[in-house]
Amino acid sequence: MGTLTFLASRFLSSRPLAGATIGVSLHITKETAVLVDSLVSLGAEVAIASANPLSTQDDIAAFLATKARVFAWKGETQEEYAWCHRMVLDQNPGQLIDDGGDLHVAAHLRGVDQIVGGSEETTTGVNRLKALEAEGKLRYPVIAVNDARTKFLFDNRHGTGQSTFDGILRATSLLLSGKEVVVVGYGCVGKGVAERARGLGCKVTVVEVDPVKALEAHLDGFVVSEMFKASTYGNLFITGTGQKSVISYESIMRMRDGAVLANAGHFDVEIDIRTMFSRAKAIREVRPFVKEIRLENGKKVFVLAEGRVANLVVGEGHPPEVMQMSFANQLLAAIRIRKSHSGLRNQVYAVDRATEEEISRAALKSMGIRFMARDSGKLSGAG
Amino acid sequence: MGTLTFLASRFLSSRPLAGATIGVSLHITKETAVLVDSLVSLGAEVAIASANPLSTQDDIAAFLATKARVFAWKGETQEEYAWCHRMVLDQNPGQLIDDGGDLHVAAHLRGVDQIVGGSEETTTGVNRLKALEAEGKLRYPVIAVNDARTKFLFDNRHGTGQSTFDGILRATSLLLSGKEVVVVGYGCVGKGVAERARGLGCKVTVVEVDPVKALEAHLDGFVVSEMFKASTYGNLFITGTGQKSVISYESIMRMRDGAVLANAGHFDVEIDIRTMFSRAKAIREVRPFVKEIRLENGKKVFVLAEGRVANLVVGEGHPPEVMQMSFANQLLAAIRIRKSHSGLRNQVYAVDRATEEEISRAALKSMGIRFMARDSGKLSGAG
Amino acid sequence: MGTLTFLASRFLSSRPLAGATIGVSLHITKETAVLVDSLVSLGAEVAIASANPLSTQDDIAAFLATKARVFAWKGETQEEYAWCHRMVLDQNPGQLIDDGGDLHVAAHLRGVDQIVGGSEETTTGVNRLKALEAEGKLRYPVIAVNDARTKFLFDNRHGTGQSTFDGILRATSLLLSGKEVVVVGYGCVGKGVAERARGLGCKVTVVEVDPVKALEAHLDGFVVSEMFKASTYGNLFITGTGQKSVISYESIMRMRDGAVLANAGHFDVEIDIRTMFSRAKAIREVRPFVKEIRLENGKKVFVLAEGRVANLVVGEGHPPEVMQMSFANQLLAAIRIRKSHSGLRNQVYAVDRATEEEISRAALKSMGIRFMARDSGKLSGAG
Amino acid sequence: MGTLTFLASRFLSSRPLAGATIGVSLHITKETAVLVDSLVSLGAEVAIASANPLSTQDDIAAFLATKARVFAWKGETQEEYAWCHRMVLDQNPGQLIDDGGDLHVAAHLRGVDQIVGGSEETTTGVNRLKALEAEGKLRYPVIAVNDARTKFLFDNRHGTGQSTFDGILRATSLLLSGKEVVVVGYGCVGKGVAERARGLGCKVTVVEVDPVKALEAHLDGFVVSEMFKASTYGNLFITGTGQKSVISYESIMRMRDGAVLANAGHFDVEIDIRTMFSRAKAIREVRPFVKEIRLENGKKVFVLAEGRVANLVVGEGHPPEVMQMSFANQLLAAIRIRKSHSGLRNQVYAVDRATEEEISRAALKSMGIRFMARDSGKLSGAG
Repeated sequence: MGTLTFLASRFLSSRPLAGATIGVSLHITKETAVLVDSLVSLGAEVAIASANPLSTQDDIAAFLATKARVFAWKGETQEEYAWCHRMVLDQNPGQLIDDGGDLHVAAHLRGVDQIVGGSEETTTGVNRLKALEAEGKLRYPVIAVNDARTKFLFDNRHGTGQSTFDGILRATSLLLSGKEVVVVGYGCVGKGVAERARGLGCKVTVVEVDPVKALEAHLDGFVVSEMFKASTYGNLFITGTGQKSVISYESIMRMRDGAVLANAGHFDVEIDIRTMFSRAKAIREVRPFVKEIRLENGKKVFVLAEGRVANLVVGEGHPPEVMQMSFANQLLAAIRIRKSHSGLRNQVYAVDRATEEEISRAALKSMGIRFMARDSGKLSGAG
Repeated sequence: MGTLTFLASRFLSSRPLAGATIGVSLHITKETAVLVDSLVSLGAEVAIASANPLSTQDDIAAFLATKARVFAWKGETQEEYAWCHRMVLDQNPGQLIDDGGDLHVAAHLRGVDQIVGGSEETTTGVNRLKALEAEGKLRYPVIAVNDARTKFLFDNRHGTGQSTFDGILRATSLLLSGKEVVVVGYGCVGKGVAERARGLGCKVTVVEVDPVKALEAHLDGFVVSEMFKASTYGNLFITGTGQKSVISYESIMRMRDGAVLANAGHFDVEIDIRTMFSRAKAIREVRPFVKEIRLENGKKVFVLAEGRVANLVVGEGHPPEVMQMSFANQLLAAIRIRKSHSGLRNQVYAVDRATEEEISRAALKSMGIRFMARDSGKLSGAG
Repeated sequence: MGTLTFLASRFLSSRPLAGATIGVSLHITKETAVLVDSLVSLGAEVAIASANPLSTQDDIAAFLATKARVFAWKGETQEEYAWCHRMVLDQNPGQLIDDGGDLHVAAHLRGVDQIVGGSEETTTGVNRLKALEAEGKLRYPVIAVNDARTKFLFDNRHGTGQSTFDGILRATSLLLSGKEVVVVGYGCVGKGVAERARGLGCKVTVVEVDPVKALEAHLDGFVVSEMFKASTYGNLFITGTGQKSVISYESIMRMRDGAVLANAGHFDVEIDIRTMFSRAKAIREVRPFVKEIRLENGKKVFVLAEGRVANLVVGEGHPPEVMQMSFANQLLAAIRIRKSHSGLRNQVYAVDRATEEEISRAALKSMGIRFMARDSGKLSGAG
Repeated sequence: MGTLTFLASRFLSSRPLAGATIGVSLHITKETAVLVDSLVSLGAEVAIASANPLSTQDDIAAFLATKARVFAWKGETQEEYAWCHRMVLDQNPGQLIDDGGDLHVAAHLRGVDQIVGGSEETTTGVNRLKALEAEGKLRYPVIAVNDARTKFLFDNRHGTGQSTFDGILRATSLLLSGKEVVVVGYGCVGKGVAERARGLGCKVTVVEVDPVKALEAHLDGFVVSEMFKASTYGNLFITGTGQKSVISYESIMRMRDGAVLANAGHFDVEIDIRTMFSRAKAIREVRPFVKEIRLENGKKVFVLAEGRVANLVVGEGHPPEVMQMSFANQLLAAIRIRKSHSGLRNQVYAVDRATEEEISRAALKSMGIRFMARDSGKLSGAG
């Protein structure tokens, strides 16, 4: 039994969401089904749309229709996508759960009289809501699930670290032992990727613009360099910065023949794909999701998924356990909003420490791991 | 040239401390001499006492007397120690640099009219000053050098991680490969110790009371357990929690014959030494700093440095590079106080981001490491 | 350019295989095409069959027909498979290259008058040939490519280590960070798997029957235990021993609910699948290549690829670079046989040290890595 | 109880050495005392000299005099050293245990009629004996303890790996995290040193003349380079090749200001100390065992222990556990000679597989580690 299910089971008798109507916009996947099922079990009525026009798994949507009002199918047009979100709001939800901010923004545009609060899954969504808050226009409290340690340690660090290499191996069948891997960015994603690269036998260089993070990478035993130099010797380049053109076309032109480029960041802007593709002498797909680019200078480089996030496009994205941690945060955020919204102001809140601890305890317990409450010299019941 | 010297050299022409009188209480070591020399070079007059009655290196004190007014010698009595601090304050310093808080407290007791600000090196000192702040009694702004990332990444994490094992090897000559090491606490110190233990070929168990940190240790690949169980199989136990009796006498009694106990935390309270010593059948010193304890149950355990911080007592404490980072923070804090004290309130301030970045850049530069300012496709001058 | 191509290019002018007819039985894949192409470029005529009735890639076979006489297609019956091998021998080859020993055995049954020597890729094949040698029936010298360090370091250790986890991730989408992985066997394969498991954030236990290898695993920092105990706490079990039933049905019954079993050894006998399947309450395929088994005691376990070698069945097998190293050995063995067969006796030979060094130099050179010939204080031309 | 004591205890009743007189030349240390005690307990009479004129611990020699005839004291002259060895042979030993070969050579010079066999601890000694064997002059069978896996895994690899860094830390107090470490040689010692360097947070480059080992280092994730290049960026250089001048004076002249040089190999010839010292502008001792050399070009480098083996000179040499493994091999070799000498020829023998397994089992048992005999689904008694 996963963390989310385990946590939900503890509230079954008290039904803390009884009477709540919750509007949801998430990717319609198996783990989302577990979240919706949990919300319903704890008493909520749920209306759900998809957070992306293309990501709905139709069989899951069909299953969810037995539990909730579902407005989602694979391959929605932009108009249909907007309609689905309007339909969710038409159910007059008192709370929202969102991934990306589209549902929150739609609610604000239409009027939010009955909405007492919500939560948000992504950095992008949180940034949109903070902008509203800064302008004094945020109309209800929002809990930023994205920044919870129980979320980002699993998701951004360990999840992305593993799934990025899963994607790279599926796409390329490279032998990683001995390869020079250049990791661009040493935030949470970059740390996860760099650590896994080393664990897989690679020699790792970190390129990082922030001097404090660069120093941290150095102390962690990684070579720290700049792209101008690293571009000449890397076998595999992986970006995870959230910034634009961290691998410039000039750097690509300096790369070794046969270099491989992949992106682990959210958007497809980190590698300057556009310039590379527009000036290429030839482009061909040599394996699924792998484009071989013959550069102006005659050298070849390989790009995964045209610079889109490799773990999601080539692999299967995060392991289910990772999503369980995010959605455990969503569940507790929904309960917190239901119980405590009157004490909250119209601002973006972090997940509170008590919630982080409750989720961690549930995760450890669901794995069968005991940890010390305190060394009383007796067996603890804590874990 | 180290980070501190490198940083100081950049201010030589502007002499930002000209006219300042700075009262200092630090351990009188070689690195302290470099700091005092830097302060003087940038224009300050310095009066210095030792932060500990026993830690003064007399040859360094003699050397410092050519630069500053020195009130320190090895083996001060408590009265002499207090007198030395009074003498520093008698020089009417306008700023203070302290390690432990004794100088700050003495200043507050006597009156601080001419003091415009100060800084503090340790957690203990910061806690004392925050208590004053909470009571509304703090009389000038203080910068908490202790919490700077450029300080604790070097000091608490990498410095302690390495020097703890340096101390353990000197004391015991254990072969670490294959040993079961139990690390109690997974904060900054515990992480550093656990990482080094793994790197030295040990099997590592983490015991941690905070569920979020326990989960982090689990994801980092360490066995997470509680002392009740870990006490039965560990070969080597290392504490670093800042808490009392995290290894209880009951747990010691369950340990394997021949287990070794060491403490990496600041105070000698983490292992219940007192009970163990009082109930021991026999105690003898088998090597310098290593006591063999024959327990009531007939088993033997070995304790390093009677539970005092092993890296300082058995080894030489932190490498000089680590101290350079702390003192680089002290130097910039002194300059910040000098220049900006009028804009600061009477509270404990964190080291600001700009200072962290400036120190990181200086450290990377002094090591000859270039890092990317931005991938313009050209060689950066950033590093 | 890979190691094999690079090596072949150095013999282009001397054409050391001119006049040779070489009979080949290998899996018909892209790397085999490179080997055949190299043999032909160096002067040989080649006749080739497939080493397995099912493994031929028909497009590669079609391409090879432009270079060699090809007797292979996907989906041969056993009769057709035998016919293909007979047709290769009908071309009167003077040398053989084999994978598994079927071609060598067929040659011995029919008479080998014109055959002056051969080579063999696999352990199984080498064992069959050594049995012939022991009985005094081996009719020509054979070089055992299988045992070359340049082969097994790449193939058995690093290749299998990586590709086993590639297969496991594709099949299961498990988050590996923090998982308890039990590796059965600490030979070349087990070492590779255990090292990668640790690098991916797992806690690793090694189960090993050989006390010297068990001690080595212990010193390498792995928990060493026996299956009776490890079966109770592992999340993931991976076998690589070459032995039968190293995970018995009794051990499977003790496993945690949800345990995953995979095999990295050549044959599907290491896990007692047969007993488990015959006594299961229910068996269903929950993902491609993943069977969920409901055991008699009500617990569920998951088995990959029904216990067949996971990296080949679920993943894509070894990376091309790994095969290049094996085939570089095959190429040099063919040249050695051609040049030196008269000096060899009818026995199984190891790859000689000079060949190992030549291949290593070529591999390092093809990767652009210079290594020291000797520190003369000058730039070496060695790499 | 250590491995040696544990093993010895199993032979106490059968007393397999009853009636044997054993001549011994070993360093007179605590572990040697345990070996001599074991030999005597199993029935032997022992006469012992020191394997080095300087290494005798006089208190141990005094203790040993209660068990054996001892001819050893600290600070023997060369004449006294030779006399001590003659005295051992005067006792008419039937077997010899030697470290370095001096006792074997002395025996051969004098005549060996009553000697039925012996053993040898070191590479140097084994080489001397193999030279005798090659000339047909070896007069009795010798077992080469040096090459036992149970010896070199502990000693050369894990023992030297750890103790080299123990020595370096004591001598220099360097912060290792982030340092560029250049390891020269990737044999058993080099592997151990490189692995520990990585584990301590260093960036590791391997310089190796053997292409197969260079390739292995590359696959193990180390940067492989040549001294010409590595000399320009290393912070710390460690040699372990057994070869002369692997760090030439020209390479030293290219090093960064402040580089540190240490040797982990047996002899002090690996770094060209002689040229460096003879051309230095200045040499001074900056810490015990650390010489600062001001080079002709004005740069400073630091040399540990004047290029002698750093772990022994600066540190305490190997941990006792490591010596226990060597001496367990010596004990079983003595028993094997006693029982089976009539079946052995006058040649240098490897330690046999059964002995390796017996020692490994004893080591694992003495550590309390159970390993699988075979998965019968029951608890094994093997460990």
